[in-house]
Amino acid sequence: MSSTATPGTGSGPATPAGAGPAGDAPGGRPALWSVDGHLEDILGALHPLDPIDLPLSDAQGCVLVEDVTVPVALPPFDNSSMDGYAVRVADVAGASEDFPAVLTVIGDVAAGGDETRTVGPGQAARIMTGAPLPPGAEAVVPVEWTDGGTGGGAATSMRPAGAAPEGATGEVRVHRPVEPRAHVRERGSDVRAGDLALTEGTVLGPPQIGLLAAIGRGTVRVRPRPRVVVLSTGSELVQPGEELGEGRIYDSNSFALTAAARDAGAIAYRVGAVTDDADELRATIEDQLIRADLIVTTGGVSVGAYDVVKEALSSVGDEDEPGGGVDFRKLAMQPGKPQGFGSIGPDHTPLLALPGNPVSSYVSFELFVRPAIRTLMGLRDVRRPQVRATLRTDKALTSPEGKRQFLRGAYDAGKGIVTPVGGSGSHLIAALAQANALIVVPEDTTSVEPGMETEVVLLG
Amino acid sequence: MSSTATPGTGSGPATPAGAGPAGDAPGGRPALWSVDGHLEDILGALHPLDPIDLPLSDAQGCVLVEDVTVPVALPPFDNSSMDGYAVRVADVAGASEDFPAVLTVIGDVAAGGDETRTVGPGQAARIMTGAPLPPGAEAVVPVEWTDGGTGGGAATSMRPAGAAPEGATGEVRVHRPVEPRAHVRERGSDVRAGDLALTEGTVLGPPQIGLLAAIGRGTVRVRPRPRVVVLSTGSELVQPGEELGEGRIYDSNSFALTAAARDAGAIAYRVGAVTDDADELRATIEDQLIRADLIVTTGGVSVGAYDVVKEALSSVGDEDEPGGGVDFRKLAMQPGKPQGFGSIGPDHTPLLALPGNPVSSYVSFELFVRPAIRTLMGLRDVRRPQVRATLRTDKALTSPEGKRQFLRGAYDAGKGIVTPVGGSGSHLIAALAQANALIVVPEDTTSVEPGMETEVVLLG
Repeated sequence: MSSTATPGTGSGPATPAGAGPAGDAPGGRPALWSVDGHLEDILGALHPLDPIDLPLSDAQGCVLVEDVTVPVALPPFDNSSMDGYAVRVADVAGASEDFPAVLTVIGDVAAGGDETRTVGPGQAARIMTGAPLPPGAEAVVPVEWTDGGTGGGAATSMRPAGAAPEGATGEVRVHRPVEPRAHVRERGSDVRAGDLALTEGTVLGPPQIGLLAAIGRGTVRVRPRPRVVVLSTGSELVQPGEELGEGRIYDSNSFALTAAARDAGAIAYRVGAVTDDADELRATIEDQLIRADLIVTTGGVSVGAYDVVKEALSSVGDEDEPGGGVDFRKLAMQPGKPQGFGSIGPDHTPLLALPGNPVSSYVSFELFVRPAIRTLMGLRDVRRPQVRATLRTDKALTSPEGKRQFLRGAYDAGKGIVTPVGGSGSHLIAALAQANALIVVPEDTTSVEPGMETEVVLLG
Repeated sequence: MSSTATPGTGSGPATPAGAGPAGDAPGGRPALWSVDGHLEDILGALHPLDPIDLPLSDAQGCVLVEDVTVPVALPPFDNSSMDGYAVRVADVAGASEDFPAVLTVIGDVAAGGDETRTVGPGQAARIMTGAPLPPGAEAVVPVEWTDGGTGGGAATSMRPAGAAPEGATGEVRVHRPVEPRAHVRERGSDVRAGDLALTEGTVLGPPQIGLLAAIGRGTVRVRPRPRVVVLSTGSELVQPGEELGEGRIYDSNSFALTAAARDAGAIAYRVGAVTDDADELRATIEDQLIRADLIVTTGGVSVGAYDVVKEALSSVGDEDEPGGGVDFRKLAMQPGKPQGFGSIGPDHTPLLALPGNPVSSYVSFELFVRPAIRTLMGLRDVRRPQVRATLRTDKALTSPEGKRQFLRGAYDAGKGIVTPVGGSGSHLIAALAQANALIVVPEDTTSVEPGMETEVVLLG
């Protein structure tokens, strides 16, 4: 179930049709990629994972890749919808409490019982909900419409067969007539054999799993959850819980993005932080390839002298494959300007290299990695929902021209209002934890005034 | 981490204040419980699970039970927000491309590096994003505002230190002046030591996990996910994938409800279907108690002679504890009239006994079990969201007086419209798989006309 990626670009700057930057900007600087162009490039290069057969219990949340038809009608046989007595209609015609119909009880018909009894004239079989309607019977009289075989007034229930076996014998007084087929669930009334139960592309939630079980499917053909390996890079990173040395910070990206990958539907593996050593990073990634459908790195993608992801991955592209390699580029967005995308290893495993600032990496995950994971899953709807909301703020939001800015916001669905949370600094991870939305300031907007409408990405 | 339940009732009919039925109805029949009364009785008897310390990676989706304060400021030291050069402001005053400031590069300051360099007059340290601002330096000049030490024009990036170690030495030409503290992230600008990072009751999603990692928390005190054991009962039940004998049906409830329990946040264990034998059921449940914070059964709760759950559990209540035992009752709802709730075993493990029809059991799960699971998790918001929607249908929906009816519906959020899916039969599991909502017809309503507004429960 390997996934292959063929990025629209080689390892150099590129201009895939409609996706990449329009070319070099004046002055020889490479042009910026747009947010949409980068995402299109990623999604265009990814294919849903190959389908596999999974046991039903393991298929929750997966996408069905077959039209499932019903092999056997549901219910598979006419059965009782009540606890009561299976009778012939003529025998209870005109019955009332004062003038009950008195029938001979020929035994019990329980759900899952093996004996078949035929109900003859003047007879009744005591029948349980879900049990097959016995031959000869035309309808079911609920136990509450009878004396329950007690010889007394209206019954409210049957006594357990174990404790009172005599209930399956003797006589029963029926107090009301029934229509033919009353309290009988017809064979095939839920679904008929040959009916389409679920269509290709359906996401398997609890009711769909229930339906598949009900029609006898023990396994089902779905796209598996993608296995996503998350690793952070940086010699300054320390594991949470350990002592923080001089000039060090805790690794938070690998924790946040592993959780986010799980949240998106992936099986996510967190790899501890890797130091800024190109050989070590290369070796770590090569080790991880065996369990990865997608690799996500954070940090080391910018213009510094120790940007290890850029250094290490610019040389591990598959040289035999024109589409291989990882392309590092700058996006017209804030935060999240430096990004890498490509594929590595013999199976061309797709790799997304995100910037290292916690907020940058999280926003990049939401915009690019989550849709990538959901594309691998075969989902139709790979993006977060977006709505328009009124900006509630004291002072206008400002944004650099030509860049799409993403600010953390608290969105109130009932009021249709979004309030900025924290500032625009890409290290403001505390504010991110209070946000439930990203406020989008488009490329051509440099200021959003209080009370104006703006686009909002809803974060789950 | 056991959970104890003390239902408001003993094993007989009961009238807890405001929750249970008002008393026996005329004619000696026990009164019906309302949907709300039954739910209140359940939630009133349940307590959130005892908190435990979990490694951060295992705490996703859990509820925090402590106010978390920040032990060390974030960032823990002044650091560079750019790849560039750490300088003294006076040294670059008035610098321009034509008249650059020429500074001596004293070395590299990388993130996570161990050496401390002091920047003296006329000097610059090459600095990487996230690296500590060295002593003596007052600001950072981005590499793009310099010649990058090449002696040429404006740089776009640094060359990797490994490949070009000379970049950490020699001279750099700076083309622009900087303000003091420019491109410096101040210590504590994200959060300060002693700040409240997250409050008790917060649900830990990816950004919250990221924040906890960033402030160094390797473990966190949360309520664990409840362990929910799901078992179905019925001698007629066959495992999906096996051959369906005469009068048999496939077990679907245990699959659907296990998936639904997972969906609600639980760790769910599916136990295969148990036949209608009270001893076997009792033994199975007693076996499962060790891994259960909540037990959910389906089937065997009605008035039939083989209703094994009722038979088995009416006698396993803890006789020493007045609040113990399982109470079987009838609810004023459709589907889902017969329900059981109580506790069993030495730890008074809560147990919900649902009816066996697939649609009845699923609707019962949504209304009662899901809120129970979320109460055990310590969530504040335990119920599915409910909205009002306009009914789109050809003919009026009818509902028996005095019962709250739940019909499967397809809800269109954009249009605010809900359309019934399938009929009202409690066995229509195929329709359930097409629904995303439950249409509620209240007790005092017997008919809802097309175009009228009605209450809708949204199913995730």
